[in-house]
Amino acid sequence: MNNAVPLPLNLPELRVEASGGSLVRRTILPSGVRILTEKMPGAQSATVGYWVAVGSRDELGSVLATPAAPALPSRYGSTHFLEHLLFKGTPTRSALDIAVAFDAVGGEHNAATSKEYTCYYAKVRDKDLPMAVDVIADMLTSSLIERGEFETERGVILEELAEASDDPSDVAGERFFEAVLGDHPLGRPVGGSPDAIREVTRDAVWQHYLENYRPQDLVITAAGAVEHDELVARVVTALTAAGWDMESVAEPVARRESAGVEIHRGAPVVVVQRPNEQASLIVGTSGFTANDERRSALSVLGSVFGGGMSSRLFQEIREKRGLAYSVYSFAPSYSDAGLFGMNAGCTPARVGDVAELMVEQLHLLADDGITDEELRRAHGQLSGSAALALEDSDTRMSRLGRAEITQGEFVDLDEALRRLDRVTPLDVQGLARDIASRPISISAVGAISENAFDGLGSALEGVAS
Amino acid sequence: MNNAVPLPLNLPELRVEASGGSLVRRTILPSGVRILTEKMPGAQSATVGYWVAVGSRDELGSVLATPAAPALPSRYGSTHFLEHLLFKGTPTRSALDIAVAFDAVGGEHNAATSKEYTCYYAKVRDKDLPMAVDVIADMLTSSLIERGEFETERGVILEELAEASDDPSDVAGERFFEAVLGDHPLGRPVGGSPDAIREVTRDAVWQHYLENYRPQDLVITAAGAVEHDELVARVVTALTAAGWDMESVAEPVARRESAGVEIHRGAPVVVVQRPNEQASLIVGTSGFTANDERRSALSVLGSVFGGGMSSRLFQEIREKRGLAYSVYSFAPSYSDAGLFGMNAGCTPARVGDVAELMVEQLHLLADDGITDEELRRAHGQLSGSAALALEDSDTRMSRLGRAEITQGEFVDLDEALRRLDRVTPLDVQGLARDIASRPISISAVGAISENAFDGLGSALEGVAS
Repeated sequence: MNNAVPLPLNLPELRVEASGGSLVRRTILPSGVRILTEKMPGAQSATVGYWVAVGSRDELGSVLATPAAPALPSRYGSTHFLEHLLFKGTPTRSALDIAVAFDAVGGEHNAATSKEYTCYYAKVRDKDLPMAVDVIADMLTSSLIERGEFETERGVILEELAEASDDPSDVAGERFFEAVLGDHPLGRPVGGSPDAIREVTRDAVWQHYLENYRPQDLVITAAGAVEHDELVARVVTALTAAGWDMESVAEPVARRESAGVEIHRGAPVVVVQRPNEQASLIVGTSGFTANDERRSALSVLGSVFGGGMSSRLFQEIREKRGLAYSVYSFAPSYSDAGLFGMNAGCTPARVGDVAELMVEQLHLLADDGITDEELRRAHGQLSGSAALALEDSDTRMSRLGRAEITQGEFVDLDEALRRLDRVTPLDVQGLARDIASRPISISAVGAISENAFDGLGSALEGVAS
Repeated sequence: MNNAVPLPLNLPELRVEASGGSLVRRTILPSGVRILTEKMPGAQSATVGYWVAVGSRDELGSVLATPAAPALPSRYGSTHFLEHLLFKGTPTRSALDIAVAFDAVGGEHNAATSKEYTCYYAKVRDKDLPMAVDVIADMLTSSLIERGEFETERGVILEELAEASDDPSDVAGERFFEAVLGDHPLGRPVGGSPDAIREVTRDAVWQHYLENYRPQDLVITAAGAVEHDELVARVVTALTAAGWDMESVAEPVARRESAGVEIHRGAPVVVVQRPNEQASLIVGTSGFTANDERRSALSVLGSVFGGGMSSRLFQEIREKRGLAYSVYSFAPSYSDAGLFGMNAGCTPARVGDVAELMVEQLHLLADDGITDEELRRAHGQLSGSAALALEDSDTRMSRLGRAEITQGEFVDLDEALRRLDRVTPLDVQGLARDIASRPISISAVGAISENAFDGLGSALEGVAS
């Protein structure tokens, strides 16, 4: 069976034979823990990830005191803070023990906080998979979050944020989200702001941990050299040993669905002045949700417009004019919102020109659409790069997690290609028209002159082409 | 056969069965072109690279006029400039054609300039390998380097350098090389300086191309889903069609050997003042050449000292004190020189403290050596990470290139592990003593106070512990 397979939450077992001979299985335990595996023939290593569907967008701000209850401190930054703290020790493993466990086998292990989920993962040789399952289970269920460690780690996180704040493209990216999404929860920075990290308390982070790391929240995905039944047994043993109640029956938490928070654009132009050699520029607007039916057309649009060295943005801005080294488009998507952005680094004096060229290219796409040749090339690019990416167990592990948490369906490579096949030039042009009709926002970091973007006047107001 | 296999330049054919069932073969064509492949069982994609053993260290500076000959302009930056220009078109393929060829199959293609070689590579699905072989052969043999394209690309490269110059860790890294290696050719930046790129002429780059891209310079390596004989035939056809003389007999150019250029330290302390949130710091000294017999011991030292979350630097500086987010050691090596560095990002006010902690840790290692437990852990880490890395055809492709160009031997994974097995704690301590006895240099970027490094006084003079 090569198809899109729905992942309903009321089916305890699922089995899918996917393209390339891999086998996808899912088990939902009575406690609500979900385990998905993809066994890849011939693999000698595996990647395993433990996911909870909570990210920076889910953090509560300060709650004011009422006559009935005291004020609550803000939890902004607590998702990212917690991600760090889970590496700092449990009753049976010190922080050093956790580090040694993975270092001693040469595995990669890390965690990622995003706006809509947090994931702890490890890539190891097949023989080390049981160890990885045990150690991450211990971290996830039994972290101590000691007050002393909490304060030390606050310093580490502030250094992490300081490093990011010295990176112009990181700053431009964060500010682009604010510019487009305004006060939408997705507009906040993933890692927390320095002020939020300075202010957040150990109790706020502890509460965040208790509320979001329960059996019914947990999704475990693994790909590569993995035997489903063995993994399930190992997980049950590890979580039971950690004291988790695996007997009581709980429904898995429902998937993220479009919460439908309305978007109010933050600002047409956000400029961060820096005495840099180069300006970091992002021009764009709101985009499409992760489950939007136009996703395949959006992939094609991204490929043709800003996806490679043959793309229109690259050819116009770098190849013809030599204005930038790096130039591309991107389209991140979330459960109830998305963004569409065009990114370039260029001489500060030319940011206005580059921004105008970007908008001009977008309108050209909206007016004239794409050629059959461009459609064919995009199809080749997307199918080839997907096939190459799926050789890695980490890509497959991540894909399983997103399928379970966000999309609610597992889309096999062959089915993804069939969906691409159905995209027509008109679909892409329709999408381009939609994007081009939305009000543009600009985020720029560098030595930007005050009137740099004056030439864009009407585009910033969202006048359709 | 699982062993270290010498790669003498007088053997036209070599065949090695390597660990994990892969097959390594080498053919030297009469013209001097060398082709090495590693066929990986079960692979469905392949990476192919075309290498020439010329890098930034080999560029000539300005040559003054003599009565017999006119002055010659500098070629600084020409290696990197040329790397860009090979993507700009041949008599039969425009720049867009080259970009389309790879984009249309979703392949990754790029090039890398380093201090001692330049490599053009592509990773593609098996069916696209012949295309990749043909297109890179065309770029390598037949690039036009038109004057108009040359000027446009000058702008692109200046943007690339501007981007790097806004990245504090990039800047600290470049300046660290200068601080340790002084006027040694390896001390110069790989990409050229902005001044060098502004000044270099099309004729200088053209001359660099003619002199260094000949049959006897070319090494082609491929790994993954690759059939050696088919690849050799394809290469011969492609190079012959490009007009290369494949009939005349030439000796492959000799390997890079320790040229033995003496190192005169550039400076004890190099500070680049920047109004950044964080300071980027590197503390270190000279290291070991790529063929040094202590390389295995150096790998162990790197793992124990600064190679992972359980390493001494990470534990002391991040885990115990929360002074940095990123902290590690590194040891790049070249044919006749190397470096040993300790890297961290930290609050500007603490750079002195962090530098002192680094030096203290280095002296502790020199004084007390490592434990058997640390040795075991390092062995596990190095063998595990090597096994995971070798799952990728790109890692194997690169390893073949370095074996042929620099090392002159192909070291199978099993043999590399045997060499690691022979490393004793005393070997590592001896190495640490050697490093700790060398004069330290510091490179720092940020808002650094004038007397930040006063506490290091004697270490900067190279007094042994």
